[in-house]
Amino acid sequence: MSASHHSEEIFVLRQDEAGVATLTLNRPKQYNALSQAMLGALQTALDAVAADDTIRVVVIAGSGAAFCAGHDLKEMRAHNDPAFHSALFAQCGQVMLTINRLPQPVIARVHGIATAAGCQLVAACDLAVASDNARFAVSGINVGLFCSTPGVALSRNLGRKQALEMLLTGEFIDAPTAQRQGLINRVTPLEQLDAEIWRLADAICGKSSLAIRMGKELFYRQLGLPLEEAYACASEAMACNMNSEDAREGIDAFIAKRKPTWKGC
Amino acid sequence: MSASHHSEEIFVLRQDEAGVATLTLNRPKQYNALSQAMLGALQTALDAVAADDTIRVVVIAGSGAAFCAGHDLKEMRAHNDPAFHSALFAQCGQVMLTINRLPQPVIARVHGIATAAGCQLVAACDLAVASDNARFAVSGINVGLFCSTPGVALSRNLGRKQALEMLLTGEFIDAPTAQRQGLINRVTPLEQLDAEIWRLADAICGKSSLAIRMGKELFYRQLGLPLEEAYACASEAMACNMNSEDAREGIDAFIAKRKPTWKGC
Amino acid sequence: MSASHHSEEIFVLRQDEAGVATLTLNRPKQYNALSQAMLGALQTALDAVAADDTIRVVVIAGSGAAFCAGHDLKEMRAHNDPAFHSALFAQCGQVMLTINRLPQPVIARVHGIATAAGCQLVAACDLAVASDNARFAVSGINVGLFCSTPGVALSRNLGRKQALEMLLTGEFIDAPTAQRQGLINRVTPLEQLDAEIWRLADAICGKSSLAIRMGKELFYRQLGLPLEEAYACASEAMACNMNSEDAREGIDAFIAKRKPTWKGC
Repeated sequence: MSASHHSEEIFVLRQDEAGVATLTLNRPKQYNALSQAMLGALQTALDAVAADDTIRVVVIAGSGAAFCAGHDLKEMRAHNDPAFHSALFAQCGQVMLTINRLPQPVIARVHGIATAAGCQLVAACDLAVASDNARFAVSGINVGLFCSTPGVALSRNLGRKQALEMLLTGEFIDAPTAQRQGLINRVTPLEQLDAEIWRLADAICGKSSLAIRMGKELFYRQLGLPLEEAYACASEAMACNMNSEDAREGIDAFIAKRKPTWKGC
Repeated sequence: MSASHHSEEIFVLRQDEAGVATLTLNRPKQYNALSQAMLGALQTALDAVAADDTIRVVVIAGSGAAFCAGHDLKEMRAHNDPAFHSALFAQCGQVMLTINRLPQPVIARVHGIATAAGCQLVAACDLAVASDNARFAVSGINVGLFCSTPGVALSRNLGRKQALEMLLTGEFIDAPTAQRQGLINRVTPLEQLDAEIWRLADAICGKSSLAIRMGKELFYRQLGLPLEEAYACASEAMACNMNSEDAREGIDAFIAKRKPTWKGC
Repeated sequence: MSASHHSEEIFVLRQDEAGVATLTLNRPKQYNALSQAMLGALQTALDAVAADDTIRVVVIAGSGAAFCAGHDLKEMRAHNDPAFHSALFAQCGQVMLTINRLPQPVIARVHGIATAAGCQLVAACDLAVASDNARFAVSGINVGLFCSTPGVALSRNLGRKQALEMLLTGEFIDAPTAQRQGLINRVTPLEQLDAEIWRLADAICGKSSLAIRMGKELFYRQLGLPLEEAYACASEAMACNMNSEDAREGIDAFIAKRKPTWKGC
C-alpha cells in the first residue's frame, strides 16, 4: 500500500505555485505512457487537487521529450486478460471525466508528441497550449486498435471529418493544424511555452474562484441540452452567481474603477 | 404604461427598407447596455417583426461607438433582489430564443465592442457581419459573474476550447479571429459594413419567403436530433416545400432560364 | 426489372482495385443528377460493397465536368405528385444513412461543382478530398426549395452560422473555404486529385479491417451520447477490439519493430 502510494508519487509529480498545481507525468523513458499505475497516480493527484481550495488552476505536463505517448502497450500485452483491459479503459475514461468535472480549469501543456490516449488527454483538458514542435496523433489504428476512447474527446474538439481522418489514418497533425482545427488554444515556441501557460493561468487565477467553479460546471452541463433548457439552466446559474458576494464586489469595483477583492468559495 | 411604451420605442429604433427591418439598440452613452427596458423594447420589436409579412430579413445594430456592452451593471446592482435578477436573465434568454425562432433570418451588424450579453446577441443571431475593428468578449468573469447564458450561444458557434478560453479569461478576440472560429460570417472595413450587410440581406430577400421560413425552422430543429430522425424530419419538410407554388415556379423558371416570381407565404 | 437493373449499372460504374471500390456517378450530361434511378443505382452499389469483404475503402466520384449537381429538377417537376417527392427524399436520406453505416470508410472525390444533394453527398461521406477548382453550394433556395436534407449533413460538418449562410443565400464556397470550414479534408490541384485519394485510401487499407469497421461504427454512435455514456461505450469497444487477434498482432509487431500481418474480419 505504502509502496504503491510511493510509486504513484513518482509517476506524477505535483508542484504548487501561486495557486497553480502542475501535475507532471514522470515516466520520461516510456514517453509518460499511461500505464495502470500512471493512471492511478494521475487519478489520485486530480482527486487531491479537487479537494484543495488553494488551487485555482491545474496544468498537466510531461517530463522528458514528449507530453504523453498513450497507453503502455507492453503492459497491455503482458496481461492477456479481457478483464484487465476493460478495467484499464474504464480507469482511463474515469481520469478524463475527472478532468471534465474538476472544479478548477485544467490546461494541457504539450510539447513533443501527444499520441493515442496522450492526445485524448489534451482533448479532455479544458484548455491546451502547445509548443510549435508538438505533434498530435490518435495512432492506435497503426497497431490494430482503433482509438475509440480518444475519439470521444477528439470529436468534441474537432470537426468530425478532421477527427475521423486522424482516427482512420493514424497520421500526425502539427501544432498549427491542431490549433486551426480546435484541439488546442495556443501555439508558442518551446522556450516561451511556460511563459504562455503562466499568462493563461494567471488570467484565470485573477478571477473569482466561485464564478469559475460555477461557470465551468454549467458550461459542460448545458452543452448537451436543447437550446431552451440550456438557457433555463444558464439563467438560473447566472442568477445564483449574481447573488454571490463576489459578483456584488466585482460590479461595485468595476463601477468605482478599482480592483476587486474576491472572497471565492 | 404608455410612458414605458414610449421609452421602449426610444431604446430600439426600427427602420424598414426594401423588406429589411433594422433594429438599432439606442442607448449609445451606455454602449447600448441590455437593461430591463432595453430587453423589453427589443422583445417588443422582435415580436412585431415576427408578425409582419412585409419583413424578409432583420438586422440588429447598435448606435454610437459600440454594438452592445451586455447587461446594465448599474441597474443590476441597484436591484439587490434575486427575483429581479432571475427575471432579468430569463427575459434575456427569451429574447435570444425569439431570435432563434423568428420566421425571418436575423443578421447581427457588429462594430466596436460586443461584450458579455452583447457577444451573446451576436452568437444568437443566424448570421453576423462585423467591421474589422470589432472586438468580442464574454467579460462577465472580470466582475465575478461568469457569462453562463452567453456561453449557451457562444458554445453553439465556437469550438468548446475556444469558447471556454473566452469565458474563463474574459479576454477579447478580434474580428478575424471571430470569423475563423465561427462566431461571425464576414469581416469588412467599417465604411463597407452597411454595403456588406445589404448584399447579404438582398441575397436572402431575393428568395422565396416560404422556403426561407420553413428552412430556418427546420434547420434548428434537426440540429439536436439523432441522424436518422434528422433525415426523416428534413425529408418531410422538403417534400412539403416541394409541394408549394414557389418550388414549382422556381424550378420551372430555372428550366426555362427566366427569373422566378415568388408568391411567398 | 432486368432493364432497370441494367440502367442502374450504367448510372453508377464500379471499379475495384487493391481493395478500393470506386463508385462513379455516370450521367455526365446531367452533371450526375441524383434522379430516382441514380439514387437506386447508388443504393444498390453501396449495399453490394457493404457485403463485400474484399473492399476496404469506397470512393464516390463523378464522371464528366462535375461531381454532382443534386436532384434531377426536371424529373421532380415531371412528377406532380407529393407521394413521389416524399419517396424521393426518403430514398435520398436512406443513401446518406447507408454511407454513414457502411462498414468501410467512404471518401468523396470532388471536382467541379457539388451542389444541393451533391453537396450533401460530400458532407455525408466520412472523408472528402477536392480539386482546387471544386465549388460547393446548397443552392435549392435559388429555386424556392430550401436544402433541408443537405442541411442535415452540412450542419454536422460546418459551424452553424457558416452552414446557414450557405443555405440561406445559395452561394458557392470554394475548396479552400470548404476545407477551412470542415466540409472537406484536403485540397489538391486537379491533376493530383487521384494520387491524393490513393494516398488516403492506401493509408486506410494498410490497417486492420476489423479495427476500422469497429471504430467507424463506434465513432458515429458515441457522437450523440452524453460524455459519460460515450466513454462507457467507447471503453467497451476498445476492450473488445483489444481482445482481437489483430490488436495482439499489431502490438507485438510494434514492440518487435516489424510489419504486422492483419487477419481482419
